[in-house]
Amino acid sequence: MSEQLIGNCLIAQSGGPTTVINASLAGAVSEALNHECIEEVYGGLNGILGILNEDLIDLAEESQQTIRGLRSTPASALGTCRFKLKQSQDYDRVLEVFKTHNIRYFFYIGGNDSQDSANKISKLAQERGWEMRVIGIPKTVDNDLVSTDHCPGYGSIIKYISTLVRETAQDNAGMGRHDLVYVLEVMGRNAGWIAAGTSLAKHRDDPNSPPHLIYLPEVPFSEEKYIEDVKKVLQKEKYCFVVTGEGLVDENGNYISTTNSSADAFGHSQLGGAGEYLANLAEERLGVKGRFARPGHTQRAAVHCSSQTDNDEAFMAGEAAVQAAVNGETDKMVILTRAESDQYKCETSLSPLEEIANGVKTLPANWINEDGVSMNFNFFRYANPLIQGEVQVPFEKGLPQFVKLSGNRVAKKLPAYQ
Amino acid sequence: MSEQLIGNCLIAQSGGPTTVINASLAGAVSEALNHECIEEVYGGLNGILGILNEDLIDLAEESQQTIRGLRSTPASALGTCRFKLKQSQDYDRVLEVFKTHNIRYFFYIGGNDSQDSANKISKLAQERGWEMRVIGIPKTVDNDLVSTDHCPGYGSIIKYISTLVRETAQDNAGMGRHDLVYVLEVMGRNAGWIAAGTSLAKHRDDPNSPPHLIYLPEVPFSEEKYIEDVKKVLQKEKYCFVVTGEGLVDENGNYISTTNSSADAFGHSQLGGAGEYLANLAEERLGVKGRFARPGHTQRAAVHCSSQTDNDEAFMAGEAAVQAAVNGETDKMVILTRAESDQYKCETSLSPLEEIANGVKTLPANWINEDGVSMNFNFFRYANPLIQGEVQVPFEKGLPQFVKLSGNRVAKKLPAYQ
Repeated sequence: MSEQLIGNCLIAQSGGPTTVINASLAGAVSEALNHECIEEVYGGLNGILGILNEDLIDLAEESQQTIRGLRSTPASALGTCRFKLKQSQDYDRVLEVFKTHNIRYFFYIGGNDSQDSANKISKLAQERGWEMRVIGIPKTVDNDLVSTDHCPGYGSIIKYISTLVRETAQDNAGMGRHDLVYVLEVMGRNAGWIAAGTSLAKHRDDPNSPPHLIYLPEVPFSEEKYIEDVKKVLQKEKYCFVVTGEGLVDENGNYISTTNSSADAFGHSQLGGAGEYLANLAEERLGVKGRFARPGHTQRAAVHCSSQTDNDEAFMAGEAAVQAAVNGETDKMVILTRAESDQYKCETSLSPLEEIANGVKTLPANWINEDGVSMNFNFFRYANPLIQGEVQVPFEKGLPQFVKLSGNRVAKKLPAYQ
Repeated sequence: MSEQLIGNCLIAQSGGPTTVINASLAGAVSEALNHECIEEVYGGLNGILGILNEDLIDLAEESQQTIRGLRSTPASALGTCRFKLKQSQDYDRVLEVFKTHNIRYFFYIGGNDSQDSANKISKLAQERGWEMRVIGIPKTVDNDLVSTDHCPGYGSIIKYISTLVRETAQDNAGMGRHDLVYVLEVMGRNAGWIAAGTSLAKHRDDPNSPPHLIYLPEVPFSEEKYIEDVKKVLQKEKYCFVVTGEGLVDENGNYISTTNSSADAFGHSQLGGAGEYLANLAEERLGVKGRFARPGHTQRAAVHCSSQTDNDEAFMAGEAAVQAAVNGETDKMVILTRAESDQYKCETSLSPLEEIANGVKTLPANWINEDGVSMNFNFFRYANPLIQGEVQVPFEKGLPQFVKLSGNRVAKKLPAYQ
């Protein structure tokens, strides 16, 4: 136990939302209120952008009902951003805001870009002699953060899209079993974690059950192999259920289809169109019906079909971040680890932000079967525990009800940031 | 009560599936077992196609557990088809199969094309002196059957997509409220019933809540008006949630975007691309981010987020069909009517197949607001009762479990049909 650091804490959310990013917020807020060294519990609106603009709210004033309701409210209750701190004056400003509001604890819920920002802020504070503790809380549906066994948000998205595969496969199979190629395009920019997750929809006792073919960004796409793969399934099943990640690349590393060439603030290009491309390809080359679905952002917001395990772990990660900081840790991100036991059990630990920042964890090659379009038992053993349990979202008058932070503003003390 | 007609009954499903088409099957089977005049309860596989091929199964042999499980199993448990009886020899064959298996009761669960087929079969049986009773059971997510107040299947699809709107709007709103146009493309070939249904996602106390703009096939699309509509919302909200039906048409009645020109057996062209088109248009003309989602067939299969009211009514429609036939009715379809009362209460009645066949019910023009992109209170009053209650789908090991008919075949007695 290190010496006590007394002051205020600030929590912010960043990057693309998940269904459990607010569960982590709820965990951090609940835990922060347990520690006397933390005087005020602030939230930063719209990620780092809100900190630059001194847009802070008082989270301790929120009702317990609201904090509990956050656990079944998708997306970022505090708002998020894709803004990247660029100039040194951005960093100076963040530090100025921290000093002005006596922020001694900073918790940043986000993916690798966000953890990189957290790391740089912390290093600057150290350079300038501002004592504070910075702990990251992992969040990403992409499951691509290094060090952690898995990321909060991942279990829920694969539970939902595996449910869609199960349901839509019923639809396909019932449609007279004429030759149909159905393509579901799921999220996943560089890594196939999400696409791979749909393999959970397969019935363990029926290796021929959908999804029949899974195309991953990790496996270079070949048109000829795709056509052969589909043909084989159609011969046996009369319909073929295909899942593809959005970021499919050919042998030269070029995206096989982009409908939209704009790039976001981090230089990632916005992908789309792989599903439509594969459906059309089957239609043109094989003369069969090709259809596709593209759940888009609905898949990362679908709290109505999310994983209780994921939700519990996201909450736990929020709590663990505060505990670690109070115990003197800094420049770390909470990671989830798997206890050595027969039954799945998740614990938390810490890993240096340095290691997380900008790293990308890809799907282990030896979890992909030799055919390149299905996952083996190692993946199943890894992913299956993450989708267990169903979050009970309150429905009122037929639709889900979400909470909204009342968001009482902390008085600004600085001139507006240019 | 007419004189008793003793013989076997045959139930079949047709057209695109819904989440409650099996609830109607369960209702019909359960009710058929209550009547001694019905000796055997058969199911026809793959709609009319299975009848031509004499592919019949014995539904009375199915376990009670399976019949109960049908109520939470999406799509057509019997299989369906989009095959249309064309030649007179097709009709002759159907009648031959009926006579061979002493089918005296025929229940066809389907949309208008299917009710048209049922009507023609019945007329032929009458001509040829084969005494039988034919009752249709309504089914379509499109909600476009005439005579009935609404169609089983509709309440569930609009509950699901309204849930997606609520969830995804949280995601959009949380993303830093930069200028974003998010487009959700929903099903609906000729009528905007499904797109209109998403207006239920709007909070009654906040007219500015999403969906902000709903584009319907009923309202001719104008690019200039769309851009003006979007601009206005962006000025106020910083993001704009758009819903579009797949079958959007311009002032000359041409579909504004088709990605796929193939037509199905009924000559309907397969639509798609309206969502992508609108997202790209906003991006090009307004320099904002345009994104889209296209849930495709997942939306009509999403039993995990379906309406208990819809499910109960679908079951009731199946029961009512059998009761009507036993009571001597024929050439009718079960319709749902709204009881005259303060509280919503649904009852069943009958309408001639003649009237249903090939009719299309469009959205009443006076339920659409003058702005052409939102629905008024008349629509809300109509649709809101249909989405009440949540079907509890059994999840096992993290995913929904569906039943499968054991499908014991009835011995074929005829030569194969050419």
